[in-house]
Amino acid sequence: MEFTKPRIEACFSPREFHQYEEGFELIVVIDVLRATSAICTAIEHGVKGIIPVDSVEEARDYLKKGYIAAAEREGKIVEGFPIGNSPFTYMNPEFKGETIVLTTTNGTKAIKIAQHKETVVIGALNNLDSLTEWLIDQNRNVLILASGWKDKFNLEDTICAGAIIDGVLKSGKFISDEDSSVAAKFIYKSAKENIFAYLKASSHRRRLRRLNLNADVKYCLTPNNLTAIPILKDGILVALKHVEKAVES
Amino acid sequence: MEFTKPRIEACFSPREFHQYEEGFELIVVIDVLRATSAICTAIEHGVKGIIPVDSVEEARDYLKKGYIAAAEREGKIVEGFPIGNSPFTYMNPEFKGETIVLTTTNGTKAIKIAQHKETVVIGALNNLDSLTEWLIDQNRNVLILASGWKDKFNLEDTICAGAIIDGVLKSGKFISDEDSSVAAKFIYKSAKENIFAYLKASSHRRRLRRLNLNADVKYCLTPNNLTAIPILKDGILVALKHVEKAVES
Repeated sequence: MEFTKPRIEACFSPREFHQYEEGFELIVVIDVLRATSAICTAIEHGVKGIIPVDSVEEARDYLKKGYIAAAEREGKIVEGFPIGNSPFTYMNPEFKGETIVLTTTNGTKAIKIAQHKETVVIGALNNLDSLTEWLIDQNRNVLILASGWKDKFNLEDTICAGAIIDGVLKSGKFISDEDSSVAAKFIYKSAKENIFAYLKASSHRRRLRRLNLNADVKYCLTPNNLTAIPILKDGILVALKHVEKAVES
Repeated sequence: MEFTKPRIEACFSPREFHQYEEGFELIVVIDVLRATSAICTAIEHGVKGIIPVDSVEEARDYLKKGYIAAAEREGKIVEGFPIGNSPFTYMNPEFKGETIVLTTTNGTKAIKIAQHKETVVIGALNNLDSLTEWLIDQNRNVLILASGWKDKFNLEDTICAGAIIDGVLKSGKFISDEDSSVAAKFIYKSAKENIFAYLKASSHRRRLRRLNLNADVKYCLTPNNLTAIPILKDGILVALKHVEKAVES
C-alpha cells in the first residue's frame, strides 16, 4: 500500500504567499535577521507571549495601555519605544513571564499574513534542529514563509528555509516539489560551512553592519543555540511545549 | 575621479517587478522554457517581428484578421491555433519575413509588464554571450526579469539570470546589490557544468517531459546556439541589429 508523502516547500516573500498557500495549514514563518530569532530567544528565556502587530501605530496604542512594546523599522528601534528586535534584549530576566507587543519591518508582517492558518510556528537558524524534528513528527504539508526584505527575496531566510527543508527531507518522510524549495536547499548546502562568510554579500547584513549590529548577526546565524518553538495561539506567540502540555492534560 | 558603476540585478517573477524596477530603464525578459528561447530562435531565423499579447482572446482576434498567431498554455498549443512556443516551429522557412502574434503562459505576460520601459530586450541561454556582450557596452542599469511559472520562482530562468549576471560582472564595469542577484549567480555557478541534469528536479522540466518535449528542453538549455537579440519596438519584438542599423543610417 502506498501513501502520498506530505510536502515541505519554501515561499520567498509574503507577497508570493497566496501563490503557494493552497493545501498548507502548517506554516513556518522565518525572519532570520532578526525578528524570528528574537522571538525564539524571548520564548526560550521565559517571555510568556509575543503579540505580533502590523503597524507602529498599533504598537504605540499598546504602549500607551501599559504594555511592554517593541518596534523596529529599517534595522533601528523606532523613536518612543523602549526596545527593538535585537535578540539580546529578550534575554533580560525582567521580561520573564511578561507579554511583549512587537512590530518589525518584515517578520511580524509575514506572521500576520499567515495567521488564518491552523498552525503557525516560528523558525530561525537558532532553533533549527528542534523545529526540524518537530516538523517531521507532524506528518502534514509544511510551507516555510520567508519574510524577505520589503517583499523581496533575501539570502539569510532562504538559507534557513533550505536548512529546514534539507533536515526534514532527510527523514525520508516528506517530498519537495517547488523550484523555490530546490533552490533553497542548493543555496543552504553551498552556504552551510560558513553562513556568516557566505552572507557577506547579503544586502541586509551590510545594512546591519552599518548599524554596528554584527554581534546580533553572528547570534542570529548560529544554528541550534536554542530549542524553543514559538507557536501562534489566539494571536499570541507562546511556547509550543506549554500548548502541547495543555493539550495532554 | 570615481564613477558609480551601473547595476545588474535579477527579479524572480513578474509579480515582484514593481519592487525592483525603480531606476531601471533597460529590462531583459527571460522565459527559458520556452517563450524567450522561441522568440530568439524566430528572430535569428528571419522572422520579421513577434507581437506579444497577454490573452488567448487577443491572439484569436489577430488570427481572425489573417495574422499567423501562436498560443501556448500549460505547455500545450491552444486549440484552434496553428502553432505554440516550441522553438523548432520558428525555424520554418515559410515564416521568414513574417510577423507572428504570440501569447504564452508566462513569457509574454512578463514582456507586457515591462513594456513601459525605454528598452526591453529578450534573453535566453541560447543568446547568452551575444546578449552579455551587448549589455556590457550599454553602461546602464540592467534589470533581468524572470518570467517564472505563474508568478512563482523557477529554476531555469534563475540559472539564465545568474549566467547573464556572472558574464556582465566579469567585465568589472557593473555591480550587483540585490540578494536575488547574488543567489542567481550562486545557483548558476553550481548548475553550469550540466544544466540539463541540474534541472531534473525542476517542476517545469517535469511538466514538459510529461508532454514529450525533451528535445525542446535540450535545445532551450543549450547556451550560445544563437546570437540574435530581440528588442521591443512599438510593441513588436524585432532584431536589435536592424534597429541599430536604422539608427546609424
